[in-house]
Amino acid sequence: MNASNIEHSNTRTFDLIILGAGPAGYVAAIRAAQLGMNVCLVEKRKELGGTCLNVGCIPSKALLESSLKYSEALHHLEGHGVTVGKVGLKLDAMIARKDSVVKQLTGGIAYLMKKNKVTVKNAWGKLAGAGKVALDSGEVLEGKNILLAMGSVPVELPFAKYDHKVIIDSTDALAMDKVPEHLIVIGAGVIGLEMGSVWARLGAKVTLVDVAKRPVAMMDADLGTEAQKLFEKQGLAFCMESKVQDIKVAKGKATVTIARADGSTEELVGDKVLVSVGRRAATAGCGLEEAGVKMSDRGVIEVDNHYQTSVKGVYAAGDCIPGPMLAHKGEEEGIACVELLAGQHGHVNYGAIPWVVYTHPEMAGVGLSEDEAIQQVGSVRVGKFPFKANGRALAVNEADGFVKVIADAATDELLGVHIIGHNASELVAEAACLMEFKASAEDLARCCHAHPTLSEAVKEGALASLGRALHS
Amino acid sequence: MNASNIEHSNTRTFDLIILGAGPAGYVAAIRAAQLGMNVCLVEKRKELGGTCLNVGCIPSKALLESSLKYSEALHHLEGHGVTVGKVGLKLDAMIARKDSVVKQLTGGIAYLMKKNKVTVKNAWGKLAGAGKVALDSGEVLEGKNILLAMGSVPVELPFAKYDHKVIIDSTDALAMDKVPEHLIVIGAGVIGLEMGSVWARLGAKVTLVDVAKRPVAMMDADLGTEAQKLFEKQGLAFCMESKVQDIKVAKGKATVTIARADGSTEELVGDKVLVSVGRRAATAGCGLEEAGVKMSDRGVIEVDNHYQTSVKGVYAAGDCIPGPMLAHKGEEEGIACVELLAGQHGHVNYGAIPWVVYTHPEMAGVGLSEDEAIQQVGSVRVGKFPFKANGRALAVNEADGFVKVIADAATDELLGVHIIGHNASELVAEAACLMEFKASAEDLARCCHAHPTLSEAVKEGALASLGRALHS
Repeated sequence: MNASNIEHSNTRTFDLIILGAGPAGYVAAIRAAQLGMNVCLVEKRKELGGTCLNVGCIPSKALLESSLKYSEALHHLEGHGVTVGKVGLKLDAMIARKDSVVKQLTGGIAYLMKKNKVTVKNAWGKLAGAGKVALDSGEVLEGKNILLAMGSVPVELPFAKYDHKVIIDSTDALAMDKVPEHLIVIGAGVIGLEMGSVWARLGAKVTLVDVAKRPVAMMDADLGTEAQKLFEKQGLAFCMESKVQDIKVAKGKATVTIARADGSTEELVGDKVLVSVGRRAATAGCGLEEAGVKMSDRGVIEVDNHYQTSVKGVYAAGDCIPGPMLAHKGEEEGIACVELLAGQHGHVNYGAIPWVVYTHPEMAGVGLSEDEAIQQVGSVRVGKFPFKANGRALAVNEADGFVKVIADAATDELLGVHIIGHNASELVAEAACLMEFKASAEDLARCCHAHPTLSEAVKEGALASLGRALHS
Repeated sequence: MNASNIEHSNTRTFDLIILGAGPAGYVAAIRAAQLGMNVCLVEKRKELGGTCLNVGCIPSKALLESSLKYSEALHHLEGHGVTVGKVGLKLDAMIARKDSVVKQLTGGIAYLMKKNKVTVKNAWGKLAGAGKVALDSGEVLEGKNILLAMGSVPVELPFAKYDHKVIIDSTDALAMDKVPEHLIVIGAGVIGLEMGSVWARLGAKVTLVDVAKRPVAMMDADLGTEAQKLFEKQGLAFCMESKVQDIKVAKGKATVTIARADGSTEELVGDKVLVSVGRRAATAGCGLEEAGVKMSDRGVIEVDNHYQTSVKGVYAAGDCIPGPMLAHKGEEEGIACVELLAGQHGHVNYGAIPWVVYTHPEMAGVGLSEDEAIQQVGSVRVGKFPFKANGRALAVNEADGFVKVIADAATDELLGVHIIGHNASELVAEAACLMEFKASAEDLARCCHAHPTLSEAVKEGALASLGRALHS
């Protein structure tokens, strides 16, 4: 696939043109280049990395870390025998650090593109029929194959458009120049909890509103219940089973009218309203309909199991196709897609894709929730192990939460592992790897785990599912 | 095995008598009880949990965490936009927190013994022939089987006995009532680095002396080299390839004479000298020789692959038998031993036992070092991935270190995974689990890892070994 880069008139030909330089797109570009393809990556944003690096995963994690340090300095050092004078917040420095982390990483991706000889076009690209991409610069690119990786954008409430001042989206929530007095968050999902946590730690009153029964409704129910309990202790207020009926903005304040499950209504007044009710595929205006690419009503691109769309030679991966909107899911799809193009055997196991919420404590999981598992296999065994019985957790003052392990009662196969607790984001890795191997709960229980580590709680969760936890 | 508990005269009979309530002993007691055995646990220390819980893993991790918070408050909050006034150290409160963590956990084990109906004898027990244990209280216990789990004690330098004031052991180093001016640490192994880190963070000048070329000589050499570089930046001084010739104590100061590799000698003067040159099996005075239990010159008990000693019905596990002195290794052995006694198929895979050093950053590994791997299989593939190319590491200001993955060049089987970096202790779990499954580097590389997590660096290490890291 070492196609040469033929230029004539205004047209250049590539083995692969990728629309969108988020995790699905830029990782696919690297992998395709490794496999010998001549790749062009088209991205409208000046910086590479997409939502994830620029206004998503990375900046939010930077702020989560810094705000956690602030909250620790305020409340949690004394217990360690560390005294501090007056604790102050330099919000501009905190935001600047976040920006510098983002800059370092987006710069890193630009370097990776050069290193892998990927041609990068800083332009808006439209699919102009099979094999063709038209850039807003007037340039037309020809590609043997095209990968659509346009990602997603925040959903807007029809009755409360973003003004980016009072009614804000997740991008705005990463760059506020002062701590709001009262941040109302519509949607107690991943973004709502993460950004709510950041601003609550920095001093804002935070209220989360959601129609669901529990925060992060896609999680195992036990985690949602525990999460609400723990985050309420941190000062977050939850209005669950509450529907937002209206948001009125006047004089820099928003009045949010919510309808409770019991039919009563209530008005919340805040200076910022973060709308985080989900994201939708960013497929509008990309020429897809015109080119005959089949999409759902909501603009989600249909693909076959080789990630090919309804148009031959046009592929899609990441947030713009079905499945959870997770950077690493997009990366794996991008990789699988180009490996298949190269005649290899790329594959994504959708049953072993972990997810994380970067609150404190963190939440993470992989596989089926208990409800899903019961629905799919009937009889399951469930083990729960609390971090308060884990030595490391006590040694680092992080004893909240638990590990929940779900196994098939008939075969003992691990069906799901769900964690709320310190470092859950890293603990979930072993569970995902083991599920990739179709391991049983007994397999997990028999793996030697270092002492004292939090990962011992994962092992104990598996032992608990077998009725023989050691430390509880 | 539901043997009844027959008492007559001064003798009681058990299915299993365990000498030593450290991780090997108390975990074996729980597992044996789960399997229906009537168990007696004999421990001279008033508190259960052995060295690990009382004066080892747990208290050191508590102090490591607290001292890290102190050092963060002094040096690392400003960068996050968090200002603090004068930072102070309340050493007594820090030590008290450590003690309270230990108390909570040893209390937890006492509870677990009750819950599992394990009889606990707070006494010094001696093997009094096959099937018999004599306690210093005069009581004699009869056991169908006996498990020796006496653990280990710090090795003493023949020319510099512990006075526990100036020349101290690891237990003393956990409970100093003031920060030493100059702590000289003999032995740059795990304990030396951990305790050296604690007191350096709290303000002591710390010098580590070791005959080895690199700290923690049993680790992969690349980790040792990187460790020394990073810890020197933190202010630890290393005198490597240096032999301690003499230690003289006068007026509360120690003069340590060391001989350098080049033949020159040097005198170091400090107010505390921590001797951490290793540990030895605590098998002296337990009646083992008299009972005919075969031991090495150094008192290490010989066992067969069912953990049986040279005396029928007498078993041994943990630090007092060969192998790395790690709590979790002892636990697994204790479990395997009693499962075998119960007719099950207990087994310890010594190739998949992780180890951790709880410095900052942490170090952890599992399997063979590169040198060992080359020696054992000949041709290997090695991949290294730096944390500075990992998004999570940058977002949390923890970009030091790397993951090193070693695979068999012929079969791609994972032979070793070695990590120096933030949270290495938890990251190593997935590697250990995968090695339990005899996974290949490609298997690890194909497992989906959540973004952004440090665990992505483990995946990238595997990709690097295959010549196709994505982000470097």
